[in-house]
Amino acid sequence: MKKIDELHLKARELTDLNSILALLQWDQEVMLPHGGSEGRAGQISVLSSIVHRKITAPALGEILAELSEKPEELSAADLALIRVMKREYDKNTKLPEKFVAEFSRLVSQALPVWVEARKKNGFGLFLPLLEKIISMSRQKADLLGYEEHPYDALLDLYEEGLTVSELDPLFTDLKDNLSQLLRRKLSQQQKPIPDITAGMPPMSVRDQVRFSEKILQEIGYDFNRGRQDISAHPFTTSLGHNDRRVTNRFRPDSLEFIFSALHEGGHALYEQNIAGEYAETPLDEGVSLGIHESQSRLWENIIGRSYQFWEKYYPLLQELLPDQFRDVPLDDFVVYINKVHPGLIRVEADEVSYNLHVLIRFELEKGVLEGAFAAASLPALWNEKYKEYLDVDVDSDANGALQDIHWAHGSFGYFPTYTIGNLAAAQIWHKYCLFDPDYRQTLVQGKLDRIRNWLTENIYRYGALYTPAELLEKVCGEPLNSMFFIEYLKNKPEFSL
Amino acid sequence: MKKIDELHLKARELTDLNSILALLQWDQEVMLPHGGSEGRAGQISVLSSIVHRKITAPALGEILAELSEKPEELSAADLALIRVMKREYDKNTKLPEKFVAEFSRLVSQALPVWVEARKKNGFGLFLPLLEKIISMSRQKADLLGYEEHPYDALLDLYEEGLTVSELDPLFTDLKDNLSQLLRRKLSQQQKPIPDITAGMPPMSVRDQVRFSEKILQEIGYDFNRGRQDISAHPFTTSLGHNDRRVTNRFRPDSLEFIFSALHEGGHALYEQNIAGEYAETPLDEGVSLGIHESQSRLWENIIGRSYQFWEKYYPLLQELLPDQFRDVPLDDFVVYINKVHPGLIRVEADEVSYNLHVLIRFELEKGVLEGAFAAASLPALWNEKYKEYLDVDVDSDANGALQDIHWAHGSFGYFPTYTIGNLAAAQIWHKYCLFDPDYRQTLVQGKLDRIRNWLTENIYRYGALYTPAELLEKVCGEPLNSMFFIEYLKNKPEFSL
Repeated sequence: MKKIDELHLKARELTDLNSILALLQWDQEVMLPHGGSEGRAGQISVLSSIVHRKITAPALGEILAELSEKPEELSAADLALIRVMKREYDKNTKLPEKFVAEFSRLVSQALPVWVEARKKNGFGLFLPLLEKIISMSRQKADLLGYEEHPYDALLDLYEEGLTVSELDPLFTDLKDNLSQLLRRKLSQQQKPIPDITAGMPPMSVRDQVRFSEKILQEIGYDFNRGRQDISAHPFTTSLGHNDRRVTNRFRPDSLEFIFSALHEGGHALYEQNIAGEYAETPLDEGVSLGIHESQSRLWENIIGRSYQFWEKYYPLLQELLPDQFRDVPLDDFVVYINKVHPGLIRVEADEVSYNLHVLIRFELEKGVLEGAFAAASLPALWNEKYKEYLDVDVDSDANGALQDIHWAHGSFGYFPTYTIGNLAAAQIWHKYCLFDPDYRQTLVQGKLDRIRNWLTENIYRYGALYTPAELLEKVCGEPLNSMFFIEYLKNKPEFSL
Repeated sequence: MKKIDELHLKARELTDLNSILALLQWDQEVMLPHGGSEGRAGQISVLSSIVHRKITAPALGEILAELSEKPEELSAADLALIRVMKREYDKNTKLPEKFVAEFSRLVSQALPVWVEARKKNGFGLFLPLLEKIISMSRQKADLLGYEEHPYDALLDLYEEGLTVSELDPLFTDLKDNLSQLLRRKLSQQQKPIPDITAGMPPMSVRDQVRFSEKILQEIGYDFNRGRQDISAHPFTTSLGHNDRRVTNRFRPDSLEFIFSALHEGGHALYEQNIAGEYAETPLDEGVSLGIHESQSRLWENIIGRSYQFWEKYYPLLQELLPDQFRDVPLDDFVVYINKVHPGLIRVEADEVSYNLHVLIRFELEKGVLEGAFAAASLPALWNEKYKEYLDVDVDSDANGALQDIHWAHGSFGYFPTYTIGNLAAAQIWHKYCLFDPDYRQTLVQGKLDRIRNWLTENIYRYGALYTPAELLEKVCGEPLNSMFFIEYLKNKPEFSL
């Protein structure tokens, strides 16, 4: 058998096993009876071990080495497969099993302590474990290897090829522009924006589910190849080429479900439109967290908070939730969902301030990892930066340095992918608007298939064929650039209706 | 490491992998979007291969051989583990991989042909494939090995240790008594029993779900360690020690959901009450199909069609489905759900005629397998026997020899477990009534925990610790016997209300 065919066989088996792991996790979040948690953890651990043994098998390493050295006649898809499998193999073999086990034990220990510390607003409770996590993350970076900055090794885990030297100028641009923009937008918003949810009758789960289903169908989510369920936190997962599921949560008094549906819908559209030829291979997924986030943010924010989109779909919302929206004018709704209001909490941030939250985390992660300051200084530095960039006073560590789960999770290097997503979304949308100068009409008429088809043609269908940087270069003709995002925000008419 | 500890490790891994397979199948029946079928089949096949390689691994064979020859200090649970694992190992190693693959291909081919043949009422369409299935089933029996009758090898797959020489006298008893009893009951039922569902307003899914949940809770099903969902055919499955799920189906005009809830509930009570010490071992399941069926039938029929049970729970049914049951007297309801009406279809049969359907299949399977007649004769023989035992004229092969999926599935040897279940249920119930002579009061008062606790104490908690025959001997003090079932039917007052 040819080496590449051997690789295909192994890749297919691993892809299937990873889909099964995804099902175990989906079921855990969505269906699992309370009593089943411990058993499920055992099942996930058994299957993860099997996957780990397979991805680190010396036989796989040899195939990859041979294919890297003296390539047979290989297609672009074959070369991409080798690239993706080699990344997985390297990531898994560079970290000794003992290190992985220890890190995973540390994280299991840290998570409940972080929950407790946040509840009690006591950073000191969490500090000793955070120090260990930082020290092990630094070791992890050393084990994985890097050329310039240890943080590069961690960034690459989430966003292939991303480096500090690429991020620094992007974030500098954002820092210079966003704080200023924020002040300008706030001054434009002179009269207070009415809270349209105040006094609104509670929304039933059933009505919210119906609207979410409808709007997912409208953007082109295929329920024949997916489903929508309820979970504590909305997410999208892939259980196979034709099984891309989304979840949402439905509260009686929050409009969050609308934007979660569009956000998860964007992730799912990406995955549902990967070319069939990549089914059951590791190319059958979005290429990176950043590119994935660009699609969720594009559908959630750029499209889903535009006036034109709601010109078309606000009547649907009014029809399905009449008691809540019948008497709210479209203009009030659009202004409300675009309200700029810098605050303490990242996940509640508006489009202008969101990336300042990420910037702060990037600066702190980078600094603490290179040893520029100690973990104990994080809360004070956090609070300083929030005052400087967002002009808000942090009232407690619970709403400050303890707010995100990521550090307790050991996920240093993850945050910047959110900003990559926002920047890439604007850059890709700019390109789309050149292709469809009447994009406003396209939105008003609900011809969303036009947008989806263009995205499929240029991005979705490729799956992980190109690296994130190659893909962006191919779509936009230039590397990632913060200008398009800043321009988008500056010119967004919905802020100043 | 001690051999027995090695075995425990392997058993635990296999148990977890089998639970994962169960999840893949549960999700397929209950959740999977239409488009996901093919991908799911691939995932099941990949994981099944891994399980097959593990259960047939020579290293496992050696451990089992060593443990069988010179036993270390072993507990009863260890010995049972060896017994159950050896059965699995033998079943899987005795059949060559090529044979298994060919049989599985044949069955995949046969299933759609059977569906088509049944639709067109053309036994001839299915015959060539059925002949191959019978010939391969005979080969399978030879490969598995047997002492007396080739059918014994197939029976043992579903009911450990069951043989033709044990079944023959049981079925002879049933044949002699049931046809006679059937005639007697029919003559007692002189005035026609009114169809209480005729003209009944359609039952909503929501109301049926609520009643099913309530009645499951009443019999002691623990929703904290399970859930109820909807599927095309009701089933129970185990995804782990604390995750035993049931399904049901809900039609607007059928009372089937009530008895499916009790039937699947019976299966689930068995599994939910296995002792915690067997969690994540192969002992953590009902010991055989027959014993499992005894529990579903006990809750569905012996308890669930008794007057006393409905004295307690009919008000609940009337409360939750008032438009349907408000004006139906309890007596009419109990008479209706116990109506004796011999017919063509096994799954619709009443308690008296049910085992005659099984008897016919047993006689035909046994005969065709030993070569007493050809597959082509099955429809004629089928029709003859239906006339003789049930006094019904078979109007078509679709309602005759083509009615069940089992032969197309290659499951020769499965049918008798249904009868084992019915007989064992009556025998076990007889024993319970000796323990609780006031059992009628127990039912009227809804003290179902009394019954469930006794069953747990005597049956459920043991899981697969004892063989089916050992277990029955232990509970009842004698082997399986058809007398208790025949007496139960003869004396059942609900038939002659």
